[in-house]
This record gives sequence, structure tokens and C-alpha cells, in this order.
Amino acid sequence: MRMVEIIEKKRDGLALSDAEIKFWIEGVSNDSIPDYQTSALLMAIVLKGMTTEETTFLTEAMLHSGDIIDLSAIAGKKVDKHSTGGVGDKTTIILSPLVAAAGAKVAKMSGRGLGHTGGTLDKLESIPGYNIELSSDAFIKQVNDINVAVVGQTGNLVYADKVLYSLRDVTGTVNALPLIASSIMSKKLAGGADCILLDVKYGEGAFMKTVEDARELAQTMIAIGKNLGREVNAMLTNMNQPLGNAIGNALEVEEAILTLKNEGPKDLEELCLVAAGYMLFQAGFVDSSEAGYDLALETLRSEKAYDVFLTWIAAQGGDISVFDDLDAFTKATYHADVIAQKAGHLHDLKALELGMVSTRLGAGRETKDDIIDYKAGIILNQDVGNEINVGDKLATLYSDTPINEQHITDAVACFVIDNDAIEKPQLIADVL
Amino acid sequence: MRMVEIIEKKRDGLALSDAEIKFWIEGVSNDSIPDYQTSALLMAIVLKGMTTEETTFLTEAMLHSGDIIDLSAIAGKKVDKHSTGGVGDKTTIILSPLVAAAGAKVAKMSGRGLGHTGGTLDKLESIPGYNIELSSDAFIKQVNDINVAVVGQTGNLVYADKVLYSLRDVTGTVNALPLIASSIMSKKLAGGADCILLDVKYGEGAFMKTVEDARELAQTMIAIGKNLGREVNAMLTNMNQPLGNAIGNALEVEEAILTLKNEGPKDLEELCLVAAGYMLFQAGFVDSSEAGYDLALETLRSEKAYDVFLTWIAAQGGDISVFDDLDAFTKATYHADVIAQKAGHLHDLKALELGMVSTRLGAGRETKDDIIDYKAGIILNQDVGNEINVGDKLATLYSDTPINEQHITDAVACFVIDNDAIEKPQLIADVL
Repeated sequence: MRMVEIIEKKRDGLALSDAEIKFWIEGVSNDSIPDYQTSALLMAIVLKGMTTEETTFLTEAMLHSGDIIDLSAIAGKKVDKHSTGGVGDKTTIILSPLVAAAGAKVAKMSGRGLGHTGGTLDKLESIPGYNIELSSDAFIKQVNDINVAVVGQTGNLVYADKVLYSLRDVTGTVNALPLIASSIMSKKLAGGADCILLDVKYGEGAFMKTVEDARELAQTMIAIGKNLGREVNAMLTNMNQPLGNAIGNALEVEEAILTLKNEGPKDLEELCLVAAGYMLFQAGFVDSSEAGYDLALETLRSEKAYDVFLTWIAAQGGDISVFDDLDAFTKATYHADVIAQKAGHLHDLKALELGMVSTRLGAGRETKDDIIDYKAGIILNQDVGNEINVGDKLATLYSDTPINEQHITDAVACFVIDNDAIEKPQLIADVL
Repeated sequence: MRMVEIIEKKRDGLALSDAEIKFWIEGVSNDSIPDYQTSALLMAIVLKGMTTEETTFLTEAMLHSGDIIDLSAIAGKKVDKHSTGGVGDKTTIILSPLVAAAGAKVAKMSGRGLGHTGGTLDKLESIPGYNIELSSDAFIKQVNDINVAVVGQTGNLVYADKVLYSLRDVTGTVNALPLIASSIMSKKLAGGADCILLDVKYGEGAFMKTVEDARELAQTMIAIGKNLGREVNAMLTNMNQPLGNAIGNALEVEEAILTLKNEGPKDLEELCLVAAGYMLFQAGFVDSSEAGYDLALETLRSEKAYDVFLTWIAAQGGDISVFDDLDAFTKATYHADVIAQKAGHLHDLKALELGMVSTRLGAGRETKDDIIDYKAGIILNQDVGNEINVGDKLATLYSDTPINEQHITDAVACFVIDNDAIEKPQLIADVL
């Protein structure tokens, strides 16, 4: 088999075989295929696409390019969820104890943030003592004991994805459905879960700009899951504004806690309940996602979910006494209010740009080695659809380093205010 | 300027600016842009195309990536011709002395052969003593003295083309009109000629499979030439059978000599006369290509062209006494006839495959370091359209190494014989 012929085949719009895709991914993994051939093929895939069958072959080949986590020592179906990346997305911290409290097994590996999106690990590490590194045995024991553990990625999962991703990033080949779908699904499958709930974001701040694109990506990932023997559902959710009101690490933990104590923002609560409903249905605890929603709501309202949250954080070494005074937990040295300078209706809350402002305040990393200021971030005071008057508070910025005029100017620019009234956008467009 | 944004622009089907193309080609030339980015852009160009304006920018950027030959010390317009590559194409050896004898200045750099097509330099080196390396001064003096010199490429012309070509070859990006056009035209322009006649081949044995594709390539190259201030015409010629009857180095020199002595095959003679007519018109010796044809015909019939051929070869050190006995000049140790095993009409003479058989007989290189057997090759005895009887001689194979059954079997397979009568194909489809 010759790589140049595989490239030519895709260039000419033909479907690649399982063997051809395996040949490529094995060559990527053992370095026998040079980057310049891979990048030519990636561009051909971007422009000519892949069938769902090809994307399944690609996912499977990538899955086998690294370690695969064995969760068989955990009794029952293991549930997992994955978000395609959003600003202010703290759902893992709420959903994990919520479904665990209802009986599901959550053996979850999470990642760190880079650029405008935060990472769940960084958020959890804002809690003093929280340990993201458990041995495989301790990880499995904790899930068997208390139904939930959230750790950093262990082992060398999906090696080929690391190579492909670093190439895609510099060759204009990030944004292709089969490449996005196979990257996500191979990592989820390598993580060992039986049931996967996907939260596919769409909008200005997301990979997928429209709900139609998000639907296509979701359908592809569901088909891959089905082809490879997993239960997969997908929510299509709006990322034209950040999820909830908090952006930043400790600030998002605080908002997660408020939500677990039934005091959180309604959009965030609703998304978590719908997601939990599907996950509980997938895992077989209820007969429908609607029944799952009801079970999740009952679990949330009874504060059983909050109890499991505390048990989980403590089990991983986190100091839960910090939650006794959330103001102190989140209190940064500096803060500055962002004030409306024009009146009208809030049409858009630029999620991506808000994520970048938060990063520049210290909440995220611009490069891999940056150190995070856990207390930095933004609390939003307005939602899309609100009527705004001059002088209204739009948001407050927090940081342990001084906040300057530029931060505020940049934050103001994220609030798109116009004359016409506008309806509040729907958060969940559909669940597949 | 960032290379990834240039790739994304082309991926999205947008036209690149002069500055963007320059940035890329300069980066290719100074190695600041990695191969994997270039190959992604090449694939995007293959699939999204380039406007004629972009292709002109690309040609100019490539032209300036290496040395540019200065022929200003030669009085009058310098003419050049370029063939897109054919089997049995010995036109340079005929055309150069033909137009030189009619007064035009031919300061030509030629290349070697690789794969199924032979190179003019290899053909000329079958003449004992012929020297392809002249100093720049000697080259210019010879053209001023006798109107013609044909040498190997001197200096480092179009450096970027070498890098791009080696990448294109292994990334499925050879066959793209803007890449082919800019590669050819940048090299021709770097060679310093004022007038360029292109012979764009089409058919099974050529890059361009159809006359329509050949026309599009020709039109693009003519437009580039016009944009960059050169006189360019292009012939569209059929490469569904080899040009003339001889394939191989000494065999093709012999056929060129026969043509210069008015004893050559008619198809080859006609192509040379038409080409010479356009070149003489471009150089201003006549008022039309038709008048140029008449002048070329007169020059050929008077054997002035043959005299200039002998003067030229001798000027570059070639031993012209070998032409006194052409049989001895071309006589290989082994020869074998290829005999028709079925009757019918000759529908196709597979040029590419015949080139490969000739290469395997020793006439060409399969790898860059192979040594050429100058006497190896094929003489064809039949043209497409001929009626063939069982037992007719189709061709004779020549080699200084033993000829085996496989060579003959492979050669027989190049003759596609079918029952229906078929018209002789037109050699020159059009001249633009």
C-alpha cells in the first residue's frame, strides 16, 4: 500500500477502505508516514469529506493507536459526557455528582483548558488539595465506593490524535466534521465508558457555527458510537452566550455549588437536568429520558447530589471547608465593574471573546506553560434578551493582578446592544 | 502574515494576493515554511484551483526564487520552445537548427529524461563528444556566431520549483493546472527567452488526457506570458501515439537527421514546420505564421537547416563524422522484431507504455542514477489507422543487453488492434 495512492483516492473524492485508513493511522503513530503526506490527506478530507463508514474506520484506527482504559472492574454501565467546548461550561462538576447520586457510575477523565475555553481539571484544582492523579486501582475503587471520580488523563490515550491535532492546527484542517467526530469519539471510547452523552455546542463561540452543522456532527458521532457498540445521545446547545453567569475557575466551582444547592442560574440547571435525564436512561435506571429528568430533578432538589459532590471532592483530597464561605473562596484581590454605555436590548454576548478576556485576566492559559490565577474571571449580570439602560452593570471582572482599562474596554465590546427587542434564545435546540 | 491563514483562504476557495503568494514561495525557498504546510496548500490548490491572475503571481514568485539567465548580450529576439513531455519527441533537435538557419536566435537549455519520457540532453549526448556544459560567455558567443546552442541547465533556476515538485510527487498534487502552468512558465521565463512556443501534448501518454484540458493549460500559460511581457503561442498536439517512428537516444538523433535531410516521417516534419512557422513569426522574421511555415519549408528543403545542425553539433564538440554511417551510429548489439499476432486496424499505440518498454531496454532512467544505453530503443513500423495482418512487423526493439520475451510481450501489448477501420488521427488539434 502506498500513501500517495491513498491521498490521490481521497483527492478524487473516493471512499477509503478500512485497511487504507489503518495503514495511514498506523504510519502516523509509528512515524513512517511523513507529516507532509498526512497534511495533504487532511486537506483532501476537509474538502472531499468522509462517509460515516470511513469516519467509523478512522475512529477505530485512532482508538487503537494508544492505551484503552479498562473499566470492567466497575460494576454496571459507566456513563460519560463530553462537551465540544464552551465558555463557562461547568456542567461536569454538576452532572457527575447528580447522576452518581441517582445511582450511575461516573469514571471520568477530564482535560485542561487552553485558549478561550476552560478545562474541568483547572476548575477542580481551584479547590485546595484536590488530587487529579489517582492510581488505576484507586480510581476504580472510588467509583465502586461512591459512584464518581474525576481525574486527569492517565496513560497514552489515542496517540494518533495528538499528532493529527498538532498538524491540523497549523494546516487549516481543524474544521472538518469527520476529523472532529473521530477525534472526540476515539478519545471517549478509549476512556472506557459504555454510555456517552454529547453536548454539541453551536454558535459564534463554538466550532460549529449553526445548529445544522451541530446536528450533522452529532448524527455522525451517534452513528460511530452505534457502529462501535456504545449508547450515544447528543444535545445540541446554544453557545451564542456563555453557559450560566460565571467564567473562571473558582467562580465556576461556586456556580456549580449554587446549582447543586438549587440556587444556580436556570439555564445551567435545565441543561444539567436534561443531560442527566438522558444519562440515567442510557444507564438503564429509568425507562425514558423524561423519567430520567424527573429522577434527576428529585435528586437535585433533595440535595443528595450536593452531598455526593462533597463526598467526591473530599475523597480526592479536596478541602471542602472552603465552601463554607464561598465569598472568601472566590474573592480576588482586584475587581472592576463593566457598565453599560448605551441603552437597548442585549442581542449577543460574545462567548469566545469573553473567554479570551477571562484568559487575559489570568483565568486561562494562552500558552501551555502559563500559570492559572484560580480566582480570576468574570461574573455576567445580563443575559441575551435583557433590556439594558445606560449605567446598568453588565458584568464584574476579577483578578489577582491589577485590572486595566483595556480589560474593561474588551469586556464592554462583548455586549452587543441594539435598539430592537429580542427574544431570549433557546438553550437546548434538540436532543438526538 | 501567517501561513495557516493563507492555507485557510485557499481552502475556502478564495483568491490569494500577490503578497500572500510571494510570502509562501519565499518561505518555501528559505525553508521557513515547513513542508506540511506547503503540502496542505498544494492540495487546497488542486481542489479549489487558482485564477489566471494568481497563477501569474505564482509564476513570478517562483521565477525570482533562483537565478535568471541574462541573454541581453545576444542581439535580436531569442526564441524557445517547450514540450509538456512526450514519447519520441525529438523536435528540439530538428527545430533548433531549422529556425536558426532561417535567422532566429536559439539559446536553449534542455533537461534529462526520467521515467517514460526521454530528455533532449540524453539524446544529444548519444553523439560522441557533444558537450552540454558551456560557460555563460561561450554559450552567448556561440548563439551570436551560429544562432544556436543547446546546453544543460546552468545556475540554480527556479529553486522553489525543485522543492514543490519533490513534494507534489509524493502528495498527490502533481496534476493541477495552475501548478503545472507556473512550473513550466517560471522555468521558461528564467531561461531568458523573449518568445516561447509551447507544445502542449494531450492523450493517454500525456499529463493532459483530453484536448480540452490541453487547451485550458495552453490558455493559462499564454495569459501568464502576456501578463509577464512575452510572446507565447501554443500548439495542442496528439500524444496518443509517439511522435515519429523512433524512440531511444541515438535512434531519435538518426530520425532528426533524416528529417533535416527531408527523409523523415511526415507527422514529425509537419509538426516541426508548423512550430518553426510560429517561432519565426514571433521573432519578427515574417508577417504571419503561414509565411513562417513557408520560410521554414524552404529552409528545410534547401538543407540549410541540416548544415546549421552539423555546424551546431561540431561547435559543441560533437563528432559529426558518426553521421556518415547512421547504421553504425545506431547499431545495438541485440535486436528483436515485434510481430502482429492478430489482424485488424491499429486503434492505439500506447505511448506511455512504449516509453516504459524503451526505458527497460536501457534507453532511459528508472532512477536518477541509472546509466543510459544510447543505442537502446524502439523503431515503430506502424501508425495508428494502419491495417494490420497477422505476421506484419509492428516494431523492432534494440538494446546492448539481451532482449527477452517479456520485452516483446510488453511491446505487443502497446499495439491495440481492433476489427473496425479507423481514421488516422490528427496530430495538431489547434495552435493558439
